[in-house]
Amino acid sequence: MQTRAIILAAGKGTRMKSEKYKVLHEVCGTPMIQHVIGNLREAGISDIYAVLGHGSETVSSYLGGSIHTTIQEEQLGTAHAVRQWQDTLRDKDGHTMVVCGDTPLISDTTIQAFMHYHLETGSKATILSSRTQMPFGYGRIVRKENGSVKRIVEEKDATDLEREIKEVSSGTFIFDNRTLFEALEQVDNNNAQNEYYLPDVISILRDQRARVEAYVTPDFEETLGINDRVALANAEEVMRKRINTLHMQNGVTLIHPDTTYIDKEVEIGSDTIIYPGAIIRGRTEIGKNARISSGSEIKDSIIGDEVEIRQSVVTSSKVGRGTKVGPFAQLRPDSELGEEVKIGNFVEVKKSKLENEAKVSHLSYIGDASIGARSNIGCGTITVNYDGKNKFRTEIGQDAFIGCNSNLVAPVKVGDRSFIAAGSTITEEVPEDSLAIARNRQTTKDGYYKKDN
Amino acid sequence: MQTRAIILAAGKGTRMKSEKYKVLHEVCGTPMIQHVIGNLREAGISDIYAVLGHGSETVSSYLGGSIHTTIQEEQLGTAHAVRQWQDTLRDKDGHTMVVCGDTPLISDTTIQAFMHYHLETGSKATILSSRTQMPFGYGRIVRKENGSVKRIVEEKDATDLEREIKEVSSGTFIFDNRTLFEALEQVDNNNAQNEYYLPDVISILRDQRARVEAYVTPDFEETLGINDRVALANAEEVMRKRINTLHMQNGVTLIHPDTTYIDKEVEIGSDTIIYPGAIIRGRTEIGKNARISSGSEIKDSIIGDEVEIRQSVVTSSKVGRGTKVGPFAQLRPDSELGEEVKIGNFVEVKKSKLENEAKVSHLSYIGDASIGARSNIGCGTITVNYDGKNKFRTEIGQDAFIGCNSNLVAPVKVGDRSFIAAGSTITEEVPEDSLAIARNRQTTKDGYYKKDN
Amino acid sequence: MQTRAIILAAGKGTRMKSEKYKVLHEVCGTPMIQHVIGNLREAGISDIYAVLGHGSETVSSYLGGSIHTTIQEEQLGTAHAVRQWQDTLRDKDGHTMVVCGDTPLISDTTIQAFMHYHLETGSKATILSSRTQMPFGYGRIVRKENGSVKRIVEEKDATDLEREIKEVSSGTFIFDNRTLFEALEQVDNNNAQNEYYLPDVISILRDQRARVEAYVTPDFEETLGINDRVALANAEEVMRKRINTLHMQNGVTLIHPDTTYIDKEVEIGSDTIIYPGAIIRGRTEIGKNARISSGSEIKDSIIGDEVEIRQSVVTSSKVGRGTKVGPFAQLRPDSELGEEVKIGNFVEVKKSKLENEAKVSHLSYIGDASIGARSNIGCGTITVNYDGKNKFRTEIGQDAFIGCNSNLVAPVKVGDRSFIAAGSTITEEVPEDSLAIARNRQTTKDGYYKKDN
Repeated sequence: MQTRAIILAAGKGTRMKSEKYKVLHEVCGTPMIQHVIGNLREAGISDIYAVLGHGSETVSSYLGGSIHTTIQEEQLGTAHAVRQWQDTLRDKDGHTMVVCGDTPLISDTTIQAFMHYHLETGSKATILSSRTQMPFGYGRIVRKENGSVKRIVEEKDATDLEREIKEVSSGTFIFDNRTLFEALEQVDNNNAQNEYYLPDVISILRDQRARVEAYVTPDFEETLGINDRVALANAEEVMRKRINTLHMQNGVTLIHPDTTYIDKEVEIGSDTIIYPGAIIRGRTEIGKNARISSGSEIKDSIIGDEVEIRQSVVTSSKVGRGTKVGPFAQLRPDSELGEEVKIGNFVEVKKSKLENEAKVSHLSYIGDASIGARSNIGCGTITVNYDGKNKFRTEIGQDAFIGCNSNLVAPVKVGDRSFIAAGSTITEEVPEDSLAIARNRQTTKDGYYKKDN
Repeated sequence: MQTRAIILAAGKGTRMKSEKYKVLHEVCGTPMIQHVIGNLREAGISDIYAVLGHGSETVSSYLGGSIHTTIQEEQLGTAHAVRQWQDTLRDKDGHTMVVCGDTPLISDTTIQAFMHYHLETGSKATILSSRTQMPFGYGRIVRKENGSVKRIVEEKDATDLEREIKEVSSGTFIFDNRTLFEALEQVDNNNAQNEYYLPDVISILRDQRARVEAYVTPDFEETLGINDRVALANAEEVMRKRINTLHMQNGVTLIHPDTTYIDKEVEIGSDTIIYPGAIIRGRTEIGKNARISSGSEIKDSIIGDEVEIRQSVVTSSKVGRGTKVGPFAQLRPDSELGEEVKIGNFVEVKKSKLENEAKVSHLSYIGDASIGARSNIGCGTITVNYDGKNKFRTEIGQDAFIGCNSNLVAPVKVGDRSFIAAGSTITEEVPEDSLAIARNRQTTKDGYYKKDN
Repeated sequence: MQTRAIILAAGKGTRMKSEKYKVLHEVCGTPMIQHVIGNLREAGISDIYAVLGHGSETVSSYLGGSIHTTIQEEQLGTAHAVRQWQDTLRDKDGHTMVVCGDTPLISDTTIQAFMHYHLETGSKATILSSRTQMPFGYGRIVRKENGSVKRIVEEKDATDLEREIKEVSSGTFIFDNRTLFEALEQVDNNNAQNEYYLPDVISILRDQRARVEAYVTPDFEETLGINDRVALANAEEVMRKRINTLHMQNGVTLIHPDTTYIDKEVEIGSDTIIYPGAIIRGRTEIGKNARISSGSEIKDSIIGDEVEIRQSVVTSSKVGRGTKVGPFAQLRPDSELGEEVKIGNFVEVKKSKLENEAKVSHLSYIGDASIGARSNIGCGTITVNYDGKNKFRTEIGQDAFIGCNSNLVAPVKVGDRSFIAAGSTITEEVPEDSLAIARNRQTTKDGYYKKDN
């Protein structure tokens, strides 16, 4: 029987103190709602409905139709939020999970176990609960003497005895779908906030003698909702630990996992060493036996085996086997380095292709260029790719030698095995096997120092 | 009734193993004594007297007359230290707080609550105490059966039973002023160290049946004195957590607060994201929605809204709205960037002003210069501001285009909309709308490679 | 009586998921087996025998004959491993410690205390044990009612009651040598894995009514074996804390010790401040009152008093008193800087010597060069040390001034007090006191902008 999910994501998140829509705040590089969606999908739930609120344009645009969305115009409580989907869903069979958009840490494994428990017990409603020594502020799970769930009591409505209860609701539920929507019609707003609360469904079902269960997940931390930036940082820490532990188990050495920042989608080969403070973002793939040093930030790139990247920034680029980059280099988007290439310090590469064993060792800018195999680009070389209006390409053949502090004024070609003298500004094509020079002879005036002092 | 404070700061701090005066060691960028002074002032105590010891010149010079100071020539104990102020203070009304110069974590809130408790109870002396599971080494608060304070017993003088006491003295006291100085005259040095101990005042007052209280602060951590570098690092960690929590509560995203280093005075707008490892020091102000990346170090600067600073060092500079800096750039003192300016990798700016939308994208040095709006400074451009004796200024107008690898030999002006050819060394003024070129033509010698091999 | 040690290092370490030999994985920059050897030596044990396994060439080559090694061809258990040394050792007097190659955290102090306990009790075999609340997976120490050791029981063979035992074996033992080898002959492989287990020696000795003891080390953490990368990261953290605490106790300020990465052999003078994220590796010595900033990585270098290194990479170099390096500079191997030298941003120095007060402030490459005292190397200066085949040296005298964006085409000499004009490519010797210039005059074409648009 099909299980679908409703994600409650209409909350304003006032305590975030943000102009940004709450569930778009990122945890390990991914907006929290995307974590929730991803975890649901991993758990086998692909029919997903979100309830959005005020200012939902950014989140709708982020989601781009990947799930169903609707708007809750007025914030009248969680039961009211779920009811936004009643026309679409009330007559459907199967089960409906209701999950908060701000709980990105509930793992797919937990969702699966929770769903399994619900189906197996044949319960009409199951609460995802957990235990904590610090239940203050959470809704407590009140159980009968026989252990069955009686109701959820909110902090402010709890008796002193109930406040001692350590089992708390995570705000995640799974219901028999028709039962849910029937019960929702009976939820009222006779309470201090004049809101329609979803947990009231539990009491209504109990009154109907329907079976209600709570599945206790062993890890309280997982169920935490993110209501402010302190909680956001905590969630980031939990998620970081999860991601990093997985990489270590797969054979990646992390010198200091607490300070290694790897986004969820990143793949890393075994025996690669990641040093403290490195940041690896987006859809990056790193090969085996590579070394990524402290101070490196790599995003959306493909890094080959045995590559060494030190104190460098690499974005949307490809780096071939055995290539060394840095320290203090930048590969900007669309750079493609072959194997055994060397990019040294204070070198920027942008939208360029370097063939195997090419070397750009220091203080150079290589933009909109192609460099052939084994060519050596001297220190201080600049591809002059911009005339103030347009960008042009530089093409350097293989085995070429570009002297230091040269300007290659694009569009320009330097042929295979050609040699550019240091300090030259090259404006015309340099054919294969030739030498080009464009500088003045030296004049030396003796006794200059004495004269001047 | 007025409350004043005496700060005890004469201790040698032998375990710091330092040439530096102990209370000048910094916690989150501020010397510990300055934290103590600041917290006292925040709590409403502005009449402050410090007792300094051997080598006090550096601390006197740091304090610069902001509080009253005197020297304790010989280190004869804490009671003796307080007595250094007896001529000045003994005949004054009101209350006197005695606080150690090495307890920077006692917050203004705690000081206020402590002072309030003292005044409300009408006690002659109140001890600031706290509870710890590890009381070893601390003076224990011995209370009578009725709960009132009997005395403070030092570790070495304590009975086995007393050693079990978990309530310890913080070394901070508040006294009725006249009572304090009268009691001080009765303190003797009949003890192992031959020192005059301030806690003895408590026993003396008890013997006189004066009322003595202890105010138990809930946070033991706050009261920790800093006696070695391990404690210094711990204090830094506690203070860092305090500062960072406040920023998060105000709407700043800290990806990893444990490794984000923000000095106490820094102000940051909401929705700004600070990445791990960033260091923000001194009197820096950062606007809203800015991004400060890992590896950035910003000091005493004003950073506008929506600015992005990546892996860069910024000191005593001003950066306008929407400007991007880095990665790997340096703004040295007195740099002022307008809005939407771009400073790219391997660029140094010093004592220069860049108008809106100016671009210095790579490998350049801009020193003692002004650059007009929308001007584009090519890669490798250097303002030659120094002739070995003096520094000169470079003035570039708006909409100018400076070709790559150019030298602008100051003093020199480049007019609006002018164009400098790549590789030129410019020594003379370039008027508006003109083109300047100062390089040699290219000569190409065919067959060079074959000839040479 | 002599004590020797056998290090068991034949294990495959499957859970490391590594091509690298397990005990060569590094903890704080040193392979784990080297930590074990070093700790044994510090504890006075210099006669050391290792048992290596499959793929041992790399570890043999690493050890280079510093200890005795043999190969266990088949992995038939720890008793079988020890027996690989029976021909050499069985007839020797004295005691033999058996220690695992993957327990780098057992300190020399613990080894000494353990050895002392063994000798003092006159026991035939002593187990190094510790207590943990989480004994799952470890061999438990089963003691008799009188407290004496009965046997070690492995997790899988333990009764429910035995599983509750909190005292566990570390896998480290010390034996009377002859007793050990006699007992080893009686160990059989009648068990699930068909392996010969060293702990069986304990039961055999007990059956012989020989005295067996266990020395309980207070710190469970010390005894942890490293079986996967998670444990490797934990060990790194424990070792890092140990190293850093020692430096702090010696008077070094570490702003955030958790994120300061210092190898074991590094020496640092008092009042030096190391900022978060700094990495100090290999055999580096740092003087007093130096400052090493975040983002710096220093390896195998000698750094003088009062040096300041900011966001820079320094390798196998020497930096004299009061010199400042960075931010964003690199000193590559064989660089030697005198006193009060300045190396500014985006400067690379390689195999060069700079005399006192020399300045290379920005965007320069100094390779294979010597620079005299007080010489000022202008921004963008490049020593052109490579012609595509060979490297040549540049020699600059003292008090010279090299203009910006100059090329010094080596081999070349610039004499004392000489002056190179900005933008020059110098190919010939520049004598003392002279001026050299090699650039073209400026031509300016008015009205260029209008014409062109």
